[in-house]
Order: sequence, then structure tokens, then C-alpha cells
Amino acid sequence: MEHMKATLMFGAGDVRVETVPDPIIRHDTDAIVRAVRSCVCGSDLHPYHSMPHGEHGTAMGHELIAVVEQVGSAVTTVKAGDFVIAPFAFQDNTCVFCREGFQTSCVHGGWYGGANGGLQAELARIPQADGSLVVVPGVDPTTADESLLASLLALSDVYLTGFHAAHMGRVEPGKTVTVIGDGAVGLSAVLASKRLGAERIILMGRHTARTDLGVEWGATDVVTERGAEGIAKVFELTGGEGSHVVLEAVGHMPAYEQAYGIVRPGGVISRVGVPQYESAPIGFGSLFGKNATLTGGPAPVRAYLEDAIGQVLRGDLDPGRVFDRTVSIDDVPAAYAAMDAREALKVMVAF
Amino acid sequence: MEHMKATLMFGAGDVRVETVPDPIIRHDTDAIVRAVRSCVCGSDLHPYHSMPHGEHGTAMGHELIAVVEQVGSAVTTVKAGDFVIAPFAFQDNTCVFCREGFQTSCVHGGWYGGANGGLQAELARIPQADGSLVVVPGVDPTTADESLLASLLALSDVYLTGFHAAHMGRVEPGKTVTVIGDGAVGLSAVLASKRLGAERIILMGRHTARTDLGVEWGATDVVTERGAEGIAKVFELTGGEGSHVVLEAVGHMPAYEQAYGIVRPGGVISRVGVPQYESAPIGFGSLFGKNATLTGGPAPVRAYLEDAIGQVLRGDLDPGRVFDRTVSIDDVPAAYAAMDAREALKVMVAF
Repeated sequence: MEHMKATLMFGAGDVRVETVPDPIIRHDTDAIVRAVRSCVCGSDLHPYHSMPHGEHGTAMGHELIAVVEQVGSAVTTVKAGDFVIAPFAFQDNTCVFCREGFQTSCVHGGWYGGANGGLQAELARIPQADGSLVVVPGVDPTTADESLLASLLALSDVYLTGFHAAHMGRVEPGKTVTVIGDGAVGLSAVLASKRLGAERIILMGRHTARTDLGVEWGATDVVTERGAEGIAKVFELTGGEGSHVVLEAVGHMPAYEQAYGIVRPGGVISRVGVPQYESAPIGFGSLFGKNATLTGGPAPVRAYLEDAIGQVLRGDLDPGRVFDRTVSIDDVPAAYAAMDAREALKVMVAF
Repeated sequence: MEHMKATLMFGAGDVRVETVPDPIIRHDTDAIVRAVRSCVCGSDLHPYHSMPHGEHGTAMGHELIAVVEQVGSAVTTVKAGDFVIAPFAFQDNTCVFCREGFQTSCVHGGWYGGANGGLQAELARIPQADGSLVVVPGVDPTTADESLLASLLALSDVYLTGFHAAHMGRVEPGKTVTVIGDGAVGLSAVLASKRLGAERIILMGRHTARTDLGVEWGATDVVTERGAEGIAKVFELTGGEGSHVVLEAVGHMPAYEQAYGIVRPGGVISRVGVPQYESAPIGFGSLFGKNATLTGGPAPVRAYLEDAIGQVLRGDLDPGRVFDRTVSIDDVPAAYAAMDAREALKVMVAF
């Protein structure tokens, strides 16, 4: 049996790169791919803070650009040698929910990590390969520019998660959009909002290096205050009216509380930060009284991917700038630590 | 000082009709109107269950068709003698939120009841009369059919609240809609969904007299089960997929729990029952994981009123059938009791 290096988490703060058996085709709809670039996600930091310690590590990672090594007998749309992007969830892309544009709820779909294997690894098994891999036409990953690879990798999750927030929030010309969170998803939400024509984009964050990129990408205002002060500042900036759209890219309760505080009557809160809470205020005093809409969820990247690949290949879209550090697979534990300490915005893993 | 009869609530279960001073013009934007018909709302039953007892009663009622008696010097769009409908909230209909279609958040608006006076009374003061009263053209309330008066009265709240649920829920052809609650608002939501072209309308309720009207108005299925059984039944009816749109017309937590249980991935829950809770599940396991949208709030009746009056006057829309009993002002306490006991669906008050 051949072996590869893969990232496992054994508990909060305990990430290790270990040698594990290579993945193999289990179903005729699977593919095996060899990683070109992977990365660490802001959502990986949630278990990095809270996972109980266990004897057997949990396979980590869900963002990947790769080259196909082998496909199962039922796979028809990708073949060995193809350069592909894997959206952060797998799906058949044919079921009723996929056809309705919510591939993260595919009846044959699921999440990477754990028993399904992680994508912070040299090799990966991709279930439902016909629905879960999209070929990048005309690009040779061995000769491509680093910036192009970074932007393509960003389409597997971070940029299209930001785009999903803006899309579900119905961002359009004339709208004031407030983005809560200056992490890589928040900055991506700024970029997506700009591309969707938002008139004004208020970015709430306090890390200058990050908010500077946000301003370059279209943020018209930066609010460093949080909580009640942050809410007051947004009201001041919007003439007391509040924000038409709030894109919540954090997932913690204070960010949600800020969101319903600043959304204007009839406005929309769109969440893409994975909620680290189950219950939260939605009654008369928070959402209902002002007819605020709450939307969002795991981005159905697959729904948006072909279009976004085209934008990147044409040079219209450059979301890869969220990556500010690159490490080898052996240094993935350090990458988690750097992102957790906010020394790095988003770390790429090169193989 | 002249006196009139008005409805006051002194605490849970304690509704009295008392003689109080006539309302007077307080601001030059006010009007004084004489009631033709008012009614009791399902939302009036919430304080009827929970209001702490007090020495001074709280003025009740927020649904009214009336004749204008007197207007303040700044009022220009209505005059003494006009037959009008008063939406259940008052508004200037010119502020930024009114222009965006959310008149229940008007910066000069507010709610009837308490210090603003109630509309279950012989006379009422209407603030912001230009924005808060809409003339019904060509109808003489002294000679009009009872059914026409009932349908016009239904536009002040109940029907347009049901319509608001459907509108915010983006009901359209091809959609499966589930309505939770067979009260007057729920039945109105069925009627509105049918008019918006819903393909299938599942009505969740267990009072046959009510669900029969729901079926007449367009419900294709009636589910009498509640809780987990009710959720299972909706999944059975929808081939395991769940409902595209859920209209929640109750306001209690079990109805909300049912709503997120049956909404399908990417679907919409639209609430118009005033929530009797503040916090509720919205995390990964309820809304976020399946990209469900939560919307709704107090209906901006004013936004929809002119169009709906036209539909009623043309005979296209007959929402007044929700009224199944009529009482005089003296019998309003009995009307509350009858609705609370579910002996009556919705009680009209004739003056």
C-alpha cells in the first residue's frame, strides 16, 4: 500500500501532518486527484478552538485545485491529467436541490473531512466526481503563474462564499452593503458586492492590512468599532437609516448581534460565517419588527463555479490576493497557528 | 366634553367596553373618524392571554373602516364624509422607509392601542391621516352590501397580512407553499398564495370549518398533524423534499419549529404571526445548513392597499369571508371570548 502525507486534527490547537494510506476509488463515481494547491479556511479555526481531544485524528481541509490521477468507471466528465477545481462540498449536481442551485444540500452530497477524507493532503478521493470537479480549460498548473493558481484556488471556497453572501443578500446597484468581518471571506464579500454594483460598501474590521485590501476591492468606508459603537457608527454613516444589506462573514454571536443592529427596515442579513450558536434573537425586537430578512448558508460553489472560472481566466477577477503566505504540507500546523494568531490572512499549501 | 364607547383591556381575559372622552385633533396631520366596522384580531389574543392586570385599561383595536368626521389643517387627501380604510399601523407614507415599501417602519409612524387610542371604538383619532387613510371610491357604507364591507375591512389587516407573508415568501407559479395556522391570517395567506400562482398549497390546521374555507380558497392538501408528525406528513406529500415556501401565521415557537422542519433547502420561511418569543434556532441545524431564508414582519398594508381595494371593488377578491360573526360594540368582550375559545374565526364589530 502506498502512503501520502495528510493533515489531521487531534483536538483544539493540535494539528499534525501524518503519513496515511493513499486514498483509493471506493465507488465507481469517485476520482482520485493529486493536490496542486490547498489552503486553510477560517472555518477550520472553529474546531481549532473547540475540538475535544481524540486518539484518532480528524482529516482536515476542503479547498483544492488538483490534477486528476484516476477515475471510477462511471465518471464521464473528467479524466486522468485534467486540471480541476474541487468545490468545498461534493455533490452529484443533478439532484432536485442541485438543479435548484443549492448543491450544498445535494441528496448524494456531503462534506470533506473525517471519514470522507480531507483536502489538505497530497492525494484525495473526490466522491461524485462528475458533479464535484470542474475542469479549468487551457491551464497547465506546472507552468501557470502563482497569482492565477491562487485565484483559481480561491474559487473552491473563499471567494464564492463571499459571492454567495452578496448574491443571497440581493446586492445590486443603489444598495448600501455592510460587511462584518475582515477575514478572507469578508474581503471576498466586499469584492463580490463591488462587482454586483453596490453603491456603498462599509467594511467592519480592525486589521489595517486587511481593510486596506478591502478598500482596494471596493469598500467605501471602514468601521473599526464593534458592538454598540460599531452599530452607532454605521447609523451615522447612513444618515440614521441603517444598511440595506449586511453580509456576516464571522459566525460568532456578537457579529450576528451587530448584523441585526445595523440592518435597516426591509433589509437583508446574509450569513456565510458558519454559526457557532444555534439559537439567537429573531423576534420583534431584532428581525421581525423591522421586516428584516435573514438568509445565507454554506455556499453552493458549484452553482457559480464555471462563470467564476471564466472571469478569472479573462483576467476580470483576482480573488487570490487573500493568500498572503504559502507553506509546504509539512508546515500546515504552523499555517493554522499563523491564521489563528492573525499573523496570516489565509495560507496556501503548495505541493 | 362628548363621550363615546371604546374597548379597553385591563389584563388577561379582562376586556371591557367603557365610556371615554371622544378623541380630538391633537396635531394638524390628524383626522377624527367614525367607525363603520371594526374587528378583533388574532394578535389581540396574545395580550388576552398574557397582559398583567392594571388599574387603567389599555385601548384596543387596530382594524377599521370608517367615515371621516374632521381633519387637521394640514390634511389634504381626505375630507369629512369620505369613506376610508385605516391600515393597522399609521404612517406618513412619504419617508424613506415608506418609499421603500416598509410603511410599518415609518419614521413618523406607529401602532394603535394604548396612548394612541384603539380602533375598537365608536370614534378614533388617526395620526398622519394623509398617509394613514385610503378613500374607498364610489361606496356608500350606509347602503353597501355586508359582504363588501367585510372584504374592505379585511384589507385593513388580515388579508393583506396574509398577502404580505406570501409576497415576502416569494410565492410564484411552480412553488409548493405550506401555510401553518388555520386562523384568519393563515386562510388569507392561502388565498393570497393561490392568487400569486402557487402550484400546491398545503394548509396545516385542525379545525374543519376553517380548513374547509382554506380548501375553497385554494389549499390542495390539509395536514391536521402537528410537530414531528406534521413535519413527516409534509415530507410525505412533497416526495421527501419539503416545502419551497412556508408561511407561518401563528407566532408561537412550535409553529416556528414546524416551519424550519418542513422548509426545503434554499426555501423561504415567511412569518406574519407576531412572534411570542425572542430567541429561536437559526444555526446550522435549523436554517443555515440548508440555506433557508427567514423573512416577514408586520405587514406594510399601506403598500398594498390601493391595488387590493381595486380587486375587491371589481369583485375579484372576497377576503371578508373570514368573518363568521358580527357583534355590536357592547358585545366586544364576548367577541374576544368566542375567538379565544375558537367558537368564532374572526368577529366583526358593527357600529
